[in-house]
Amino acid sequence: MRPRVYLAGPEVFLPDAAACAARKKAVCAAHGLEGVSPLDALATSPPGWDALPAWRRIHLCNEAHIRDAAALIANLTPFRGPSADAGTVWELGFARGLGLPIFGYTVATEAFTERTRRSLGCAGPATRDEEGMLLEDFGLADNLMIDGAIAAAGGVLLAGPPPAAGRWQDLAVFARCVAACARRLGVAG
Amino acid sequence: MRPRVYLAGPEVFLPDAAACAARKKAVCAAHGLEGVSPLDALATSPPGWDALPAWRRIHLCNEAHIRDAAALIANLTPFRGPSADAGTVWELGFARGLGLPIFGYTVATEAFTERTRRSLGCAGPATRDEEGMLLEDFGLADNLMIDGAIAAAGGVLLAGPPPAAGRWQDLAVFARCVAACARRLGVAG
Repeated sequence: MRPRVYLAGPEVFLPDAAACAARKKAVCAAHGLEGVSPLDALATSPPGWDALPAWRRIHLCNEAHIRDAAALIANLTPFRGPSADAGTVWELGFARGLGLPIFGYTVATEAFTERTRRSLGCAGPATRDEEGMLLEDFGLADNLMIDGAIAAAGGVLLAGPPPAAGRWQDLAVFARCVAACARRLGVAG
Repeated sequence: MRPRVYLAGPEVFLPDAAACAARKKAVCAAHGLEGVSPLDALATSPPGWDALPAWRRIHLCNEAHIRDAAALIANLTPFRGPSADAGTVWELGFARGLGLPIFGYTVATEAFTERTRRSLGCAGPATRDEEGMLLEDFGLADNLMIDGAIAAAGGVLLAGPPPAAGRWQDLAVFARCVAACARRLGVAG
């Protein structure tokens, strides 16, 4: 049985989310892994499931997938702001709390600090925003808890090159991340 | 010994971060809890600590504080975009993965969907952004993984009223959240 790897990322919001998940799963399969998408149904529904609102079912489904996974790979490409998608960041933290190996990738090539400055419209080398709040400046891909957690878990956070196809369609850096995950899990890709 | 509660939030970026942490700790103490700030030093440094770069030390310090806490209270007030601070969201997920009771609060009174539309400059009732990506529309405070996790953990996510003082200075909704956390932990506030 191939190790299950949860594929966190905001591609669930794409119009062709199912097709995107299928392409990512194909990359996983080529590396000896079973990609699990947030869109996948659970094998069995938890008790009381039908009475819950949709947002609670989606949350519990994703938690269950992650609890059942051997690792998590997160698409940390900036989403509607300088940081990654909030749901994806939450899932990365959750997986770390469970003790899973975690991996991340992004097609952004600009550092977090620069993206934050640009997003806030800050002048050149500003170190604080207009509320006086500090801009993290460690040369990282995102907030230090994200980069730090992946480093602490022994994973990798891979960045760029700029995507040849659309930023949610190009799977080059994702494929490198899957390969790193497969090596970590002891699977010959 | 009072239960330790980790106080996650972007106030660490404020110019008066230490004073802000002290005020939040005072609210916790009044409710029989020991507030732990991300700024607090660890009692003992982990092995190899001194050789690590600052961002890794900060991450490991915060992880250690959360592992040692009885609960986590997150300031989910929107930060540099429609969602909460990425580091705070990561910590919320991490605490959930550890099985801790988690609580959240925000001074925003506008729902996540509306904030996202405004942030993206979307016209009126848009349901997708300019990349065609769906806008979550569940009437929640933030991404459903955040609201869902707090609900699943039996916590509360409290919103508003609009802050009387600055949005990082007004502790009215924080105090209500601390009271709910103290009740959950069986502490008479």
